[in-house]
Amino acid sequence: MNRVSSLFGIKYPVVQGGMVWCSGWRLASAVSNAGGLGLIGSGSMHPEMLREHIRKCKAATDKPFGVNVSLLYPEIDVLMRILEDEDVRIVFTSAGNPMTWTKALKDRGAKVAHVVSSSKFAAKAEEAGVDAVVAEGFEAGGHNGREETTTLCLIPAVREATGLPLLAAGGIATANAIKAVMVLGADGVQIGTRFALTEESSAHENFKRYCLGLKEGDTKLLLKKLGPVRLLKGEFMRAVEEAESRGATADELRALLGSGRAKKGLFEGDLEEGLLEIGQVASLIDELMPVADVMAELSEAFE
Amino acid sequence: MNRVSSLFGIKYPVVQGGMVWCSGWRLASAVSNAGGLGLIGSGSMHPEMLREHIRKCKAATDKPFGVNVSLLYPEIDVLMRILEDEDVRIVFTSAGNPMTWTKALKDRGAKVAHVVSSSKFAAKAEEAGVDAVVAEGFEAGGHNGREETTTLCLIPAVREATGLPLLAAGGIATANAIKAVMVLGADGVQIGTRFALTEESSAHENFKRYCLGLKEGDTKLLLKKLGPVRLLKGEFMRAVEEAESRGATADELRALLGSGRAKKGLFEGDLEEGLLEIGQVASLIDELMPVADVMAELSEAFE
Repeated sequence: MNRVSSLFGIKYPVVQGGMVWCSGWRLASAVSNAGGLGLIGSGSMHPEMLREHIRKCKAATDKPFGVNVSLLYPEIDVLMRILEDEDVRIVFTSAGNPMTWTKALKDRGAKVAHVVSSSKFAAKAEEAGVDAVVAEGFEAGGHNGREETTTLCLIPAVREATGLPLLAAGGIATANAIKAVMVLGADGVQIGTRFALTEESSAHENFKRYCLGLKEGDTKLLLKKLGPVRLLKGEFMRAVEEAESRGATADELRALLGSGRAKKGLFEGDLEEGLLEIGQVASLIDELMPVADVMAELSEAFE
Repeated sequence: MNRVSSLFGIKYPVVQGGMVWCSGWRLASAVSNAGGLGLIGSGSMHPEMLREHIRKCKAATDKPFGVNVSLLYPEIDVLMRILEDEDVRIVFTSAGNPMTWTKALKDRGAKVAHVVSSSKFAAKAEEAGVDAVVAEGFEAGGHNGREETTTLCLIPAVREATGLPLLAAGGIATANAIKAVMVLGADGVQIGTRFALTEESSAHENFKRYCLGLKEGDTKLLLKKLGPVRLLKGEFMRAVEEAESRGATADELRALLGSGRAKKGLFEGDLEEGLLEIGQVASLIDELMPVADVMAELSEAFE
């Protein structure tokens, strides 16, 4: 049996990545119902909103699901308390130091996976006691590593650095890509972009339709002085590129970014003023499908 | 039979990429003798130097080999005349417009492959009449595409755009990586970095040894205002990063780059002042082997 499937008690070693404004209970439960592992992305939720999503997800599926938590979340204590209250048994952590929460999570019986972008941090995550690592390459959407290592180069490096169950992420949207990263040493995959562009994703319809028309080169890794983010072309990306070209400082970029832009772009569908983020692989996706159909297609990788 | 192998008359569909200061007759003939396709990289050679390398390569192997030509080479007419004089039957072109030379090359019986970094330019290369395309991802060393598309995302896109024999390049240094890109739709591979770090490569010993110690994140795609180049950490890269961070213009970068820096770094082994370039995948390579041993290892992909 596949190590990732047995770790999480799922049919296919396919995890739907937690994504701001895309992955609420509706997407997560659909993925879990289809045999993968759905993750509620807590990054765009106030703590009580997260509680509501967890409860709705439980009502919508009797299969395992999890929650993704950025360890830099401002009210992380409150959030972790809710995960315990609601008995969430699978937690994917990202950013921050996995030492701070892994033991507490495991002591109450949860399985923990940590997202990394280098073999160095994969080894640190193993030291912290996590059950699995997600290694995410440069092509992934949203926040990204400073090393800019692509999935093709990253997976073999992380495979060498740790014996833990390994999920590949970044650039994976098809059964063939799943097969390819498993040849490189992954035990399973975490997929974001493909699931962000499904019927069940809570991203705005404008955003989803816009993403279906993307070509190669329409996303760029920018905002490196703040922390690299893969942005999608639009008015805001143009403003960021212009500012960076003239040498804008971190403070200037922070001011340009302001607040609430991701919600405006992804959730409210404002393609002009909003911050838009998606993975490079969006250029290969040209149809909005329901999750069940996507999972049926992806599951061909395991036949 | 494999389409790439039969197109070039070789045993394994493995092409050694043409690389400045690394791939003269010695490397190219060693790769061809081991069952791959060696390419002499003309980019760092004066025309008469190229003629000498072609003649030495012919003397060193009775197997097919080729020459890589940047279509932006200043004395391209002189260079193409030499390829004709010396009856070079395999030409890999890169940069520039494949329309300008493909017909002339094919009219005299040569096979032509063109290097691209997007599906759009793959389709244009097909229109120009090339026999094969090389699709090179973001992780590759040296000059690179503006789209920053990684090999994992690029190969399926190019596979969709053209029915031509397709060689994947960028991030490929092992038999597993060859298998992975073939799952994605490639018919073969072009490998640079792994061959740059062999005994037969003409890069300086200092440079080769330095590359064996690299970690993830030690190369960066920089100089984007001039045309993106993947540089390797060192004094020159630090100077470029600092200049770009404060918004240096293309002219300022050109002045900083000066001339002769690649020779200084790669061929003369000056790790301080020289321009150093290598692919991301160098971080996976920790031994300098002879080409025959590398090819034996890579050929496991085809067993």
